[in-house]
Amino acid sequence: MKRLFLGLVAVALIASAFVGSTTTVVAQTKVLKMQASWPASLTLYDNFTYFAERVNKLSDGSLKIEAMPAGQVVPAFEVLDATHKKVLDGSHAWAGYWTGKNKTAILFTGGPGGTFGMDYMDVMGWFYHGGGLDLYNEFYQKELKLNVVVFPILPAGPQAFGWFKKPIQTVEDMKGMKCRQTGMAGEVWQALGFTVVNMPGGEIIPSAQRGVIDCAEWVGGIEDMQLGFHNVWKYHYSPGLHENVTVGEIVINGDVWKELSTQHQEIIKSAANETFLVWWTKWQRQNADALIEMQQKHGVQILRTPTEILLTFIKKWDEIAAAESAKNPFFKKVHDSQKAYASAVVPYKRSYFPPYSFMANYYFPVEK
Amino acid sequence: MKRLFLGLVAVALIASAFVGSTTTVVAQTKVLKMQASWPASLTLYDNFTYFAERVNKLSDGSLKIEAMPAGQVVPAFEVLDATHKKVLDGSHAWAGYWTGKNKTAILFTGGPGGTFGMDYMDVMGWFYHGGGLDLYNEFYQKELKLNVVVFPILPAGPQAFGWFKKPIQTVEDMKGMKCRQTGMAGEVWQALGFTVVNMPGGEIIPSAQRGVIDCAEWVGGIEDMQLGFHNVWKYHYSPGLHENVTVGEIVINGDVWKELSTQHQEIIKSAANETFLVWWTKWQRQNADALIEMQQKHGVQILRTPTEILLTFIKKWDEIAAAESAKNPFFKKVHDSQKAYASAVVPYKRSYFPPYSFMANYYFPVEK
Repeated sequence: MKRLFLGLVAVALIASAFVGSTTTVVAQTKVLKMQASWPASLTLYDNFTYFAERVNKLSDGSLKIEAMPAGQVVPAFEVLDATHKKVLDGSHAWAGYWTGKNKTAILFTGGPGGTFGMDYMDVMGWFYHGGGLDLYNEFYQKELKLNVVVFPILPAGPQAFGWFKKPIQTVEDMKGMKCRQTGMAGEVWQALGFTVVNMPGGEIIPSAQRGVIDCAEWVGGIEDMQLGFHNVWKYHYSPGLHENVTVGEIVINGDVWKELSTQHQEIIKSAANETFLVWWTKWQRQNADALIEMQQKHGVQILRTPTEILLTFIKKWDEIAAAESAKNPFFKKVHDSQKAYASAVVPYKRSYFPPYSFMANYYFPVEK
Repeated sequence: MKRLFLGLVAVALIASAFVGSTTTVVAQTKVLKMQASWPASLTLYDNFTYFAERVNKLSDGSLKIEAMPAGQVVPAFEVLDATHKKVLDGSHAWAGYWTGKNKTAILFTGGPGGTFGMDYMDVMGWFYHGGGLDLYNEFYQKELKLNVVVFPILPAGPQAFGWFKKPIQTVEDMKGMKCRQTGMAGEVWQALGFTVVNMPGGEIIPSAQRGVIDCAEWVGGIEDMQLGFHNVWKYHYSPGLHENVTVGEIVINGDVWKELSTQHQEIIKSAANETFLVWWTKWQRQNADALIEMQQKHGVQILRTPTEILLTFIKKWDEIAAAESAKNPFFKKVHDSQKAYASAVVPYKRSYFPPYSFMANYYFPVEK
């Protein structure tokens, strides 16, 4: 009887070890197929792969993000709809692409001027402590009727004002030029009566070389250098206010999200926030190095965008935003929420943060 | 025989279910006993509990941080040594407390002026993409011979310049006053020939009420309001350059760290970075609300620290840093590393980021 008992125990232990290990491997591995709105060659894509890497490590391989570049499953600008339809489990994109559905989308990127003077941290503060993330989800789920959840992940700026074939001083100087502009920036310039043209990134440099355009906005820093702006033009202006704050997104299908364990959901949230911070600081380093190379190797002049031009832009944006608020209640709701948050936080930060240029000029004086 | 086999299988399955669930709970739950350098009443302590909460969620409860306030196991300023000796598994503190061991410590908080004009993101960039985190670990492990690993987690500023019983215009105005100052700020003011006194937070307001001191520096915003500065003085100055960037730390005993699974190590890293971002934006909101309350309910004047005073401070800090570099090779190594990183990134950000006050003044004009 003792022998039978020992035998039973031995079988039980062997069986438990076997059952245990099999369960661990099979039941816990989950793969999410996600696609970006950008090709793998863009530095923005690194934000996506860094996120995937963090999810993999945080979950000990039990959750894998299959990160795919634009076009692998659907075209770049169809990733949101494809996520809704579960053609993709999720996407890595930028809400500014969805302004054709509803202009409120631009506000979830931050938007022109911040919005309301907010910087990246302020916009993240609005998302997490000012009701912004709830509005972002409400926008997709109730306004656009999409079965998705969304998180901010990609601080894709500040983006530079752009490149010019000759120096500019005034708004009038720009009026005589034909500029490549996109999205909300293009809309604002058009409302100001400017001649703007839109074209994909790959066509900008050839068009500049043929003299079809006199100026162009793209991203700035390393992305601009990879495109080759410095080979055709030498006047690079910053800052811009069209995308000084511009935040990209992780979107996941609502059913896929609900099927994830609570732990996997938390891992996605943390990985997105960590990516925001760690990738951004990496990108700033890359942009800084690109600016040095532009100036030292390619004779590019980094010039200050004239204040008059920035103010003209932001005033027109405010008119467009006010007009949109008057006819689009959800836009107004989000815009008002951002203004309320900014009205507390922005004056505080203006007084508590030393102006960046104060210490910068002290340690690294601008050469005249 | 068939019956015996079925019996064995049944026992095996029951045993495996039992062994399996017991193993899951017992083998995977790990508790780290960590203590902070601050009492639970400080908002800085929320950063610690938020970290603990994220670790718990990310690990599905398999890793728990037992977060304890100052004094629960060891006094506030003994947490680093206690972590080294494994009296604690880890600590939540601020490297500035360890300048008595070696002045290099202050540089890992960021340090006066940034250092070199760096803001919080730049310092995080230096940690993760400029060799800073390796130097931080090298400092504790090789210079101080401590068996610990360290991560940045707590953006505890920018801290305000402080509170005054009457308005100040010049450095001379301050010379006639007795100020409560601590740490590196106190050292700089002392080197400038000022009368400074140090005292714990709890003694500041009584001393102010008795007229023992004429001015004091604490933290700023919500922390200053919780202490009650607005009840005795009405002149609050910002910004300051003594702790405009000031980052706190998570320190974990080296043996404890090595015994953690790779997954648990990655969870701690991500939770620290996420806490940095999400807690900081929450704290900014709290500080903003406190500033509004100070002004609207308590008649506090939020005033701009005179430029001359800021420049006097930073020039003296530079002298102290140069003197320390001359006699402390590790200080020089870290200081030089920060300067190299800043010299690329700071000029880039100066040109790419719109000055914060530009949009702030446009949307929220300063009342004169």
